[in-house]
Amino acid sequence: MRVRKKPWAEPYIKEHQEYIVLDPQSYLGKWQDRFAKKQPLHVEIGTGKGQFIIQMAKKYPDVNFIGIELQESVIATALRSFLEDPTPNLQFVLTDGGDVNEFFTAHEIEKIYLNFSDPWPKTRHAKRRLTSPGFLKSYQDVLKTDGEIEFKTDNRGLFEYSLGSFNNYGMQFEYVSLDLHKSPEAEDNVETEYEQKFSPQGPIYKLVAKFNS
Amino acid sequence: MRVRKKPWAEPYIKEHQEYIVLDPQSYLGKWQDRFAKKQPLHVEIGTGKGQFIIQMAKKYPDVNFIGIELQESVIATALRSFLEDPTPNLQFVLTDGGDVNEFFTAHEIEKIYLNFSDPWPKTRHAKRRLTSPGFLKSYQDVLKTDGEIEFKTDNRGLFEYSLGSFNNYGMQFEYVSLDLHKSPEAEDNVETEYEQKFSPQGPIYKLVAKFNS
Ligand SMILES: C[S@@+](CC[C@H](N)C(=O)[O-])C[C@H]1O[C@@H](n2cnc3c(N)ncnc32)[C@H](O)[C@@H]1O
Ligand SMILES: C[S@@+](CC[C@H](N)C(=O)[O-])C[C@H]1O[C@@H](n2cnc3c(N)ncnc32)[C@H](O)[C@@H]1O
Repeated sequence: MRVRKKPWAEPYIKEHQEYIVLDPQSYLGKWQDRFAKKQPLHVEIGTGKGQFIIQMAKKYPDVNFIGIELQESVIATALRSFLEDPTPNLQFVLTDGGDVNEFFTAHEIEKIYLNFSDPWPKTRHAKRRLTSPGFLKSYQDVLKTDGEIEFKTDNRGLFEYSLGSFNNYGMQFEYVSLDLHKSPEAEDNVETEYEQKFSPQGPIYKLVAKFNS
Repeated sequence: MRVRKKPWAEPYIKEHQEYIVLDPQSYLGKWQDRFAKKQPLHVEIGTGKGQFIIQMAKKYPDVNFIGIELQESVIATALRSFLEDPTPNLQFVLTDGGDVNEFFTAHEIEKIYLNFSDPWPKTRHAKRRLTSPGFLKSYQDVLKTDGEIEFKTDNRGLFEYSLGSFNNYGMQFEYVSLDLHKSPEAEDNVETEYEQKFSPQGPIYKLVAKFNS
């Protein structure tokens, strides 16, 4: 998802730094200070326009959420939606989620969500996929023992790749759905923007996996 | 697949014991004696009416194939098709494929095929699925180091289960397709009876995996 630069985005973000972090390194080991309460931390990487994480924060007040997004114009839109009705358990971070292990400490995170990550279909770009082994290593560094990755996508090629990547990395599968919206778990599912847009065209795949302790 | 008993099946099988084995235990360590040439051994469990294994034997003359099937009436039909134009590299075995480790020795088999295995959808029947851990143990006993299992099905629930089962057993994924007939590998694919019948209704899933050495 590449988007046009929005001139309002940068000043808007700067104005609302109580809800968005621009210098994540300075919160190393101190993320809980950003929230009203100290409670389990869930992080979404590639949060897009924020529909998923904003709803999750409303649905699960006993969890602290962080939405990480690389693109300023995109996260500005997420922030704007959030500010229509903000909750004290959600923070945004404008940065590259591939570097999570540089601004989170070991075992700090209970769950990482990857939703409709960019597929990078060309084999020579495989390393850029957020489910490739290099990224898995970063996630492993910061997840609790038994911490989970929850991954959803409509992209068949990316899901096939990711099943192999998680498997070959030695992760344990806890849940696999090859058509989430027809599975019993659909009931509890919180939809992302992409999910809403693309689910009429084909199945949504979901994998929940953890690193072996 | 439960089928009516065919009265011709038993005598027909007894008449053609050069191509079908009824006492597999007596070939323990001696399977190569059943073939014209000593060459790699591939085994299909739940071979049904034999379309896949018969075509495979024609396509790969440098491999010895064994088709195992539990039901007499079904394997009799496979045998009859085969005898229209027999090849010296295919043998049938009427027995329970779950017991492969009782009539094959360690490292005797290079590849095991599971095609459209009975799904046993109820959780309390999970142990009967040919991809459940108990069966995987038997396959591991008889497969060569680096030997593979190739599994195809149209059944979403069974495939979801099997991805988890293979992964959590510690197997390595070598190939995953969530829509085989739309994958480049479709070109080399040999279709089974069930595959031909059910592929117009939805995707065919395929997994190739091996036990870690
Ligand atoms: C296809 S969109 C999906 C957005 C949203 N998760 C959804 O499901 O609707 C992928 C998003 O991930 C962001 N992204 C890609 N790589 C990233 C990275 N390394 N760190 C943070 N965000 C990233 C992109 O900028 C884009 O907004
Ligand atoms: C659904 S049919 C599929 C047949 C064929 N493989 C195909 O793809 O068209 C499954 C077959 O597996 C056989 N089968 C089930 N359990 C078996 C076992 N433990 N050992 C051998 N055959 C078995 C059944 O009798 C049946 O013929």
